[in-house]
Amino acid sequence: MNAGIPKDFLPEWVRSEGEAGDVVISSRIRLARNLKGFPFPGHAGKDQLEQVVKRVSEAVGRTGTFAFLPPIRLADLTPNQRLVLVEKHLCSPQFIENPAYQLLIINEAQTVSIMVNEEDHLRIQAIRGGFALDDALKLANDVDDFLEEYLDYWYDERRGYLTSCPTNVGTGLRASVMLHLPGLAMVDQIKQMLTALTHVGINIRGLYGEGTESLGNMYQISNQVTLGHSEEELTNNLKGVCKQIIEQERNVRANLLKESRLQLEDRIGRSYGVLTQARLMTTQEALKLLSDVKLGADLGIIPEIQKVKIRELLFLTRTSILQKVFGREMSPAERDYHRAMIIKEKLNAK
Amino acid sequence: MNAGIPKDFLPEWVRSEGEAGDVVISSRIRLARNLKGFPFPGHAGKDQLEQVVKRVSEAVGRTGTFAFLPPIRLADLTPNQRLVLVEKHLCSPQFIENPAYQLLIINEAQTVSIMVNEEDHLRIQAIRGGFALDDALKLANDVDDFLEEYLDYWYDERRGYLTSCPTNVGTGLRASVMLHLPGLAMVDQIKQMLTALTHVGINIRGLYGEGTESLGNMYQISNQVTLGHSEEELTNNLKGVCKQIIEQERNVRANLLKESRLQLEDRIGRSYGVLTQARLMTTQEALKLLSDVKLGADLGIIPEIQKVKIRELLFLTRTSILQKVFGREMSPAERDYHRAMIIKEKLNAK
Repeated sequence: MNAGIPKDFLPEWVRSEGEAGDVVISSRIRLARNLKGFPFPGHAGKDQLEQVVKRVSEAVGRTGTFAFLPPIRLADLTPNQRLVLVEKHLCSPQFIENPAYQLLIINEAQTVSIMVNEEDHLRIQAIRGGFALDDALKLANDVDDFLEEYLDYWYDERRGYLTSCPTNVGTGLRASVMLHLPGLAMVDQIKQMLTALTHVGINIRGLYGEGTESLGNMYQISNQVTLGHSEEELTNNLKGVCKQIIEQERNVRANLLKESRLQLEDRIGRSYGVLTQARLMTTQEALKLLSDVKLGADLGIIPEIQKVKIRELLFLTRTSILQKVFGREMSPAERDYHRAMIIKEKLNAK
Repeated sequence: MNAGIPKDFLPEWVRSEGEAGDVVISSRIRLARNLKGFPFPGHAGKDQLEQVVKRVSEAVGRTGTFAFLPPIRLADLTPNQRLVLVEKHLCSPQFIENPAYQLLIINEAQTVSIMVNEEDHLRIQAIRGGFALDDALKLANDVDDFLEEYLDYWYDERRGYLTSCPTNVGTGLRASVMLHLPGLAMVDQIKQMLTALTHVGINIRGLYGEGTESLGNMYQISNQVTLGHSEEELTNNLKGVCKQIIEQERNVRANLLKESRLQLEDRIGRSYGVLTQARLMTTQEALKLLSDVKLGADLGIIPEIQKVKIRELLFLTRTSILQKVFGREMSPAERDYHRAMIIKEKLNAK
């Protein structure tokens, strides 16, 4: 069944661990841009939205550099196909809520995506595996520079790029990093860190948006404001914070290894054992157990596991991805079965 | 470490699955005998107890047939060595409580044991793997017949063999069978069966004596009275009851396979996964998980496991056995570690 998953189905950020992959899952840069002379999408009429779609499509069509795939009309997709795009981090959950005039442009490697008519006319996004904010910023800027040659952005000398939401005005940049923090979670220091971060202008949230409980000890941190700083300043600020968290997380792990290695090995071993042998598994349990096993692989406790397999499984076991792989909607029971089977096969394969 | 366990450390009943080994762990016959002219052990003085020890030792010494090992003075053993004998089912828990004048005689295969000065002067016991009450009865009778040539038993033409406890008077025979009933436990029919059995003169108890909760779904059933029936009648009665329980248990299992195979496979798979990967495990958890895995092996759900390995592990993971294997007393934490390691090694070995 895994043989049936085409290699390019998996986004580059899933397949490549990148730097500091023991703590950082992926790094993302998002730029918000709007076209001069058009109201923001929330206030625009049907014709105006279509005009924006047309202009962006034409601009994108002029380049061969970024290997863009043909633009995707969100309205043409099934609900599950839309969810797959969210799971691939190619668009936001908000983007698929009302897909009437939404267009998505992605490149072959699935490292770049352009949401058209989300909250802003354009949201240019670049995502890379591991701790790679500079790479992602460069990629997003390259795309932005290219598009700016053909599109007339709404820009104000004093305030910078104008955006629908005031928090994005200025650079229009949001940098974010997805972190795996099982160590800090284990010693109950997540809440403390969360509070500290909000004091320095950093947002933190669990997997799948604000307010949701963190599944699999995944936390996304990002800058809160974009005004009054350069793109580099914003990115460097987040990088600095991120480095501190990476260090904290690694220290906690080292300490756990020193103080309670056996208990840690036991917990990780049990999770691995269940993953390789269960026949039914919910998304929640899969994330929880895969989080343990990722920690085990990163600490060398389960040396036989290729780390990339865990990254792939963290992605493949999501409901929409699972349904995409099997080419059909499935009942929860069916999904629990196939989820368990995909995990079992992948982990037991040499 | 397992290489360090001598093969003959494991009693024959552990190593050989025998008949109906999917449900029956072992079959045991015990004969109660007393020497004429001596008060029962509970009422005898020191000299009288020593006299009994001497007489039985001498009688046993006259035979080469049963390959008896030199008699063991319970008083010479460490508390753990005594517990090992209980775990091997070579003597009763009561026998080791006050070991002053107790003697134990066992044969090489550990299929026969003679407790001297337990509740009665002699308790001759034969135990075999699987459903083998006839074999066990024959073996016990052979030993009994041999000893009777040299010992003057307390016997009454009308009442039969006289014993310390009135429930043993008559044949002095107790037949018992250790059953593994995970299916009946899963569908919550154990209590019902228990009630039904007591109505037909059958005792049932969980592993480790009356009143204890059943660990690992192990239940021992035995005849309640010995008076008024021949040895064959008593044994055949228990055999009949046993056959019914075996059939019930097998029916429940077949039904579970038919109705909820996936859930069953999931539960068994998870238990197997944890057993092969945990680093710390209590006796209680080991028994619970091994019970699942035994069921899985018996149903062909985990075909790669040799069933005898599970029988061995059910035995080897007991605290006293573990300490015997390692040759020393261990803290609970140490035991939990070594228990997990023995299981891991044995199950992962090809």
